[in-house]
Amino acid sequence: MQAKLPLSGFRDFLPEEAKVRDYLKKKIKEIFELFGFEPLETPTLERAEVLLGKYGEEAEKLMYLFKDRGGREVGLRYDLTVPTARVLALYSGEKIKLPFKRYQIQNIFRAEKPQKGRYREAVQCDVDIFGSDSPLADAEVLSVVFFALEKLGIKNYTIRINSRKILYSVFEKKNVNEGEAKVILRIIDKLDKKGREGVEKELEEKGFSKDWLSYFSTLQMDDELEKIRSLAVLNGVKEENLKFDPFLVRGLDYYTGMIFEVSVEGFKSSIAGGGRYDNLIKTLGGPNIPAVGGSLGFDRIYDLLRDKLISKLKEKKVFIAIFSKEFLKESLEILQILRRNGIKADICLKDKYDLKKQFKYADQKGFSYVVLVGPEEKEKGLVKIKNLNSGEEQLVENKEVAKILKNEHF
Amino acid sequence: MQAKLPLSGFRDFLPEEAKVRDYLKKKIKEIFELFGFEPLETPTLERAEVLLGKYGEEAEKLMYLFKDRGGREVGLRYDLTVPTARVLALYSGEKIKLPFKRYQIQNIFRAEKPQKGRYREAVQCDVDIFGSDSPLADAEVLSVVFFALEKLGIKNYTIRINSRKILYSVFEKKNVNEGEAKVILRIIDKLDKKGREGVEKELEEKGFSKDWLSYFSTLQMDDELEKIRSLAVLNGVKEENLKFDPFLVRGLDYYTGMIFEVSVEGFKSSIAGGGRYDNLIKTLGGPNIPAVGGSLGFDRIYDLLRDKLISKLKEKKVFIAIFSKEFLKESLEILQILRRNGIKADICLKDKYDLKKQFKYADQKGFSYVVLVGPEEKEKGLVKIKNLNSGEEQLVENKEVAKILKNEHF
Repeated sequence: MQAKLPLSGFRDFLPEEAKVRDYLKKKIKEIFELFGFEPLETPTLERAEVLLGKYGEEAEKLMYLFKDRGGREVGLRYDLTVPTARVLALYSGEKIKLPFKRYQIQNIFRAEKPQKGRYREAVQCDVDIFGSDSPLADAEVLSVVFFALEKLGIKNYTIRINSRKILYSVFEKKNVNEGEAKVILRIIDKLDKKGREGVEKELEEKGFSKDWLSYFSTLQMDDELEKIRSLAVLNGVKEENLKFDPFLVRGLDYYTGMIFEVSVEGFKSSIAGGGRYDNLIKTLGGPNIPAVGGSLGFDRIYDLLRDKLISKLKEKKVFIAIFSKEFLKESLEILQILRRNGIKADICLKDKYDLKKQFKYADQKGFSYVVLVGPEEKEKGLVKIKNLNSGEEQLVENKEVAKILKNEHF
Repeated sequence: MQAKLPLSGFRDFLPEEAKVRDYLKKKIKEIFELFGFEPLETPTLERAEVLLGKYGEEAEKLMYLFKDRGGREVGLRYDLTVPTARVLALYSGEKIKLPFKRYQIQNIFRAEKPQKGRYREAVQCDVDIFGSDSPLADAEVLSVVFFALEKLGIKNYTIRINSRKILYSVFEKKNVNEGEAKVILRIIDKLDKKGREGVEKELEEKGFSKDWLSYFSTLQMDDELEKIRSLAVLNGVKEENLKFDPFLVRGLDYYTGMIFEVSVEGFKSSIAGGGRYDNLIKTLGGPNIPAVGGSLGFDRIYDLLRDKLISKLKEKKVFIAIFSKEFLKESLEILQILRRNGIKADICLKDKYDLKKQFKYADQKGFSYVVLVGPEEKEKGLVKIKNLNSGEEQLVENKEVAKILKNEHF
């Protein structure tokens, strides 16, 4: 068998990358839980009829659907909302009391054309509140997203907010029917990509006035969105990170109230988004309950922070070199002392104790310290520590090793 | 759409269960990393030709194989060893220096007949050392498994060890050919299930002497296994948890040296196992390197510890009740203070501030404390804390809330 890359659109994550992904997931979970959101896990495979739900043909084209060995039509999880709707249909009221704040961090699968930033297997991080129509719930979602981004150390981002109600009130006032309204919104949604001129051109091409764009720019927050905004600020979101954006449309489907999207200066894709979707859970087969939530674009955040975090997570690690067979016992003792003190430590796993090779291996693997007990050290009850970054060496007492490496005195 | 259970053999994990699974994964990762093992992540989908490798027809029957939208033959990950062999074939030597200690905690998929303890989607926790033939590597695997089980609080378990070399030396001595040897081993492997009499009966039925069993009972550790055992003890494994078991066979395939299995008193299935497999990685298309590793039976450990951990992980959580609309600001302030101090806190998400209903909800959701600011409290700069377990109430100063709830003084 030849060496084989993963399938196109899928990725292997070697240790330095897997560590970054683990770190991001851990930090995101910490914030979600601090805010009282609880984890939910659903299977990777679902019945096709559950997946297809009411998402329509466009989504179906991107789904991995197949027959399992029992002839059942099944498919890979396409998003996390559909399985959650199924879980709510099963358990809400009894096992799940409303309002229910859940988060779900799992992989989803989409047979998209692979391209930069688009993967066929990606991690989705959803945080949603089911069963509350209070603006406080909307504010809580904005707030948890804000704190998660802060925790991840993301800078220069803006949470742009708008409301479907504001968008639709425009068309009501102007007596535009729903079909036309959708077309206009779809064009305005392209403002980020096509720019003002491009959008004006398309409006005219499709038979609408190009003044729609100017008209949208005069829109203001309604009372409800203003209330959500002020509650979000009371709930910790910094005012300078939160901006009303009358051009924010966020697709056309299922949102019914507040919508938001997070953009980072100098980074093309939005890194988070969400909104209120009071009818969707019922449409998907769940109970008739209001819902509001958000999703962090995990793989985009990973792409954004990857290089910075790879450096940051290069941890100080200790490698124990073995002087010779006769020093195996002493070396294993040191190893145990370090590990029992919570210090990540590793040991030579070759039976030929070539010190030069051991130091080279430790260096290549990115270890920061090598610890060694040789004949001189053993006689005096000492241990040698070498700092591979500075090249410095130090002789310390056997029982002090853990303390010294823990406090990075060296 | 009717309420639908997950597909047979697949599971939803509601919050209290998902928390237990998260906890287990976290603890296992901590130990793996303490021992210098590094994470690896591979895709859920692989090319069918990669999956099929050399595992043979029996495994193929249990694989989820299908054609993707591009007509490629693909399948769901069946184990973690095959994808790792693929990764090693791609990167070992350059991006991955040997010896390489990696762990991998991901879901695997097997179309097994669903039954208690057998799931079609299960978590596998593998820890392996690639590129070392030293007995110290074998000992390191036993040791990391031991420390992981200790960390999880598992009691009364035995790590039973044996060696393929010992088993095969028996047959060499007795001039039994390989085919017959395999049959005899397969029968002896059933000792746990069938008992001594059952095994003796089957031996005779298949034309072998029933004395094989007695003969096996006289076997002793060879020098290599004795060395591994003593290194494991030096490396922290308690002697009383480690036992030589001459009847341990552990399937028939791919192991070439030390083998082990962990059993818990009163629990039918083994909860961990592994061994040395020096030829497998090459057979699977990877480089020709020795390997030794182990696997924790995550879903068995979950079944074993689930109930105990659900109780243990019922965390103290704080619910902020809202007295009335006028107290929204004060209530959100308290919420923020708590969260900024790392205390998991939640707030009423209804717009009708019925205090009785709020306390009932907090109780049903398992909150331990309710915090409230009403008119009396506000006037005096105080906050009321109610302990829902004891029913006790306490008035504390606004700025003391976090300190008091953090130290559980109450």
